[in-house]
Parts: sequence; structure tokens; C-alpha cells
Amino acid sequence: MAASGDKVKLLGRSWGCPYVIRARIALELKGVSYDYVVEQLGEKKSELLLKSNPVYKKVPVLIHNDRPICESAIIVQYIDEVWAGTGASILPSDPYERANARFWTGYIDDTWFPALLKIIKVKTEKEKAEALEQSFVGLSLLEETYKKSFEGKAFFGGDNVGYLDIIFGSFLGWVKAIEKISDIKLIDEAKFPLLAKWAERFASVATVKEHVPKTDELVEFFSKVLKDLWNASAPNN
Amino acid sequence: MAASGDKVKLLGRSWGCPYVIRARIALELKGVSYDYVVEQLGEKKSELLLKSNPVYKKVPVLIHNDRPICESAIIVQYIDEVWAGTGASILPSDPYERANARFWTGYIDDTWFPALLKIIKVKTEKEKAEALEQSFVGLSLLEETYKKSFEGKAFFGGDNVGYLDIIFGSFLGWVKAIEKISDIKLIDEAKFPLLAKWAERFASVATVKEHVPKTDELVEFFSKVLKDLWNASAPNN
Repeated sequence: MAASGDKVKLLGRSWGCPYVIRARIALELKGVSYDYVVEQLGEKKSELLLKSNPVYKKVPVLIHNDRPICESAIIVQYIDEVWAGTGASILPSDPYERANARFWTGYIDDTWFPALLKIIKVKTEKEKAEALEQSFVGLSLLEETYKKSFEGKAFFGGDNVGYLDIIFGSFLGWVKAIEKISDIKLIDEAKFPLLAKWAERFASVATVKEHVPKTDELVEFFSKVLKDLWNASAPNN
Repeated sequence: MAASGDKVKLLGRSWGCPYVIRARIALELKGVSYDYVVEQLGEKKSELLLKSNPVYKKVPVLIHNDRPICESAIIVQYIDEVWAGTGASILPSDPYERANARFWTGYIDDTWFPALLKIIKVKTEKEKAEALEQSFVGLSLLEETYKKSFEGKAFFGGDNVGYLDIIFGSFLGWVKAIEKISDIKLIDEAKFPLLAKWAERFASVATVKEHVPKTDELVEFFSKVLKDLWNASAPNN
């Protein structure tokens, strides 16, 4: 549990990583002070990162009183549980709603975002069309879920930013960048009116505004850094 | 929350599916009465399954008072939260231990078990050797985790079967079947003494004994059914 004198450190990136953004938003919504330690992309991984996340060797890692917690969705749940007494709850209190939020988290991370990235990763038009279609299927499912369970509410979390807002919203920077790179509207207000309005509301939350990267910077990062990194590794990885 | 008169239904398979076993063990540890509805492998999916899990169309689905909950690890957490008042807790109460259990769940489901299945799925000796190595890396990590955090305890959950026991243990039937099919000892007592003893203890728990399929039946199922299904689909899927 949280106590005064807690030492909280977050290993992250200088900017732009959606998974790191999740941990930052959760900590800041809960009003937790933390040291932010930057791991530079492409440079040698720090001893602290290798020791703290020996299995995946990836950021984000939250280090709370010298104990590491890995994987962004797990970190957000941990923050919500440890700092239960401060700020609004991040996860819903009802077990059924919590199960739903976890279900869509898995879908967004394992199915929807990989498809979204493929739009700018794959080589052929056929693969790109498939990735686009899968991305739109995901957006339709999320629009439908919003309509069914959250219409009239400001966020997936109700009146406050919640778990699913953080999980899905952390990718909004990339959605806009991919829209610009591909010249395709993804979260189109005509097709997905509830998601489009939700995205606007989410992007205007103070801590979100501070951490979600700007579209032009992501586009530049993609064309100058990421494209080469992807081309250097196995296709579609 | 749980109430008397709750209607609980589980959509599963006739036998053998590790993900279904998880839900059955969790329900039975909590003493929850439930109707078990069998979806036959390879046959047309039922209307109830398609309606209850439109995204993945897969078992297990828990239907609690007409509301569906999908994905085995989410179902186990849901059962633990709804029936919090009966039986021992399935997830640890400490947030750090809970984060650890969730971390190893992700590792087992996304990295370790896919590698394990590849031992009998892949076509070349090189691929098989890689799959074996990755499976052993996973077992070493889990042995080390047990040593560090649970040595002297009966289970990953402490004195009682917990979340990680259910997640990892649901695959023990397949571990033994793959050992027999490949003539390779995986959970070798000399290499992984703590895991080997844990596996024996876990397998002797009454509800586990009832649901974890017998090695010979799984071997037969593999050679008569699964091999053809896999060969008919894309390689390594």
C-alpha cells in the first residue's frame, strides 16, 4: 500500500511511447510524485532496465520502493490498487464492468493496435487494405461498446478518465500520425461520432495534453527513425 | 456481486481445453454451482456462443445472470471478485504480488505456451530446437520465480491454489502429452525440482484431477484430430 516517503521511479522514453504514456497518466491522475528516468531508443539498455525487466527488457517499468512492476496495463492496475485512497478510481468498481474494461484492453493491445501499425508497416497494397479493414472493424466495435455502455458519459470511465480511456487513449497520437502519413481519416466523425467526441475530450485532459505527442513530431519520428528501424528488423515486426 | 438465485452458465468443450479448465477450477474452488454447456470442436458454433463472444467466437464464456464474460484469465479474476466472500481468494491480496501474478500470466499465455505447442507443431528440426529452447527458458524463469517468492509454500498462491497455479497448471496436461509425443522430459525433476513438486501437488487437488485431461487421451486427440486441423490451417497457427 502507499505510504508517505514512498520512492517511485518510472523508466520510460524521452517521448512518444504509448505504453509509457499510460503509466504517466495513471500516476498523475492519482497525484503520485515520481522520478522519471529516460531510456534512449536505440542506445544500450541501462543496467537498471535490464535488472528491473529481465524478461522483456522494455519500458515502461515502475519501480516502487525498489520493487519493479512491468507491462503497462499491469502497471496502471497496480497504481490504481496501491493509491486507492487518492483521486478517482481508474478501474470500475463493478466486477462486470472491470471484466469488460480488461476484455477491451486485450483486444486493443493484441488485435487493434497491431493492425493499425500495419497500415504504415506493410509493403503491399493488399496487406495495407487488410490492415485498414481490421482497424475499422476495431473502431466499429469500440464505437458500439461506447454507445451501449457509456453514451452520455464523458469517458469510458464515466465522469472521470478510467482504465479503458488510458489504454485506448494512449494510442491517439499514433492514430492521428497514421491518418496524416496515409491520408486516411480513421476516427471519422461521420462514421464514429461517439469515439470522435470522446477522443477530443480525452485529448483535452491536462495530463494527457502534456504527454500525448504531437502529430507532426510523430510523423517526423516515423519517417526519420522508425521506418529505418522497422526495415532493419524482420518484416512486420 | 454474487447473490442467491444467481444463474451461472459456462460455455466450454467436452474436455481438454486448458482455457476452459481454468474457469471450471475457479468456479469449483469458490463452490459456485453452474450449468456446463458443451461446444463441440469442429462443429458449427452455437448461436449462444456467437452472441456471447462475437469478437473472438471462442470458449470459455462465463454467462452470469445473462451477461457474458470472455477470455479465461479475465473470467478467473471476475469469479474471484464476484464470489469474494466464499472460499479462499484466488488472486493475492497484496497489489505487488497481484502485479507479479498478472505478469507471469501474460508471459505464460503469450510466450511460453505458444513455444511449447510449437514443439509438436513445427515442421523442421531447427524450428523444433528453437521451440524447445524457448520452452526451457520459460520453465527456468518460473522455477526461479517459485524459488524467490514461494519456496516452502505448497502453491504459487501460498497455502491454497491461486491465480498463477490455475493459469500455469491448466497447461500441465499438455506438458505431459508433449513430453510423451516428443520423448523429451520438460518439467524434469533434476532441472526444475520446485516446479516438478508443485506440478505433483497441483495435479492431486480434487477439482484439478477431475478436469485436467489424461496424457494418453491428449496424445490420441493430438494424433487423430489436432494434427489434421493444424495441417489444414496455415502453418504454425
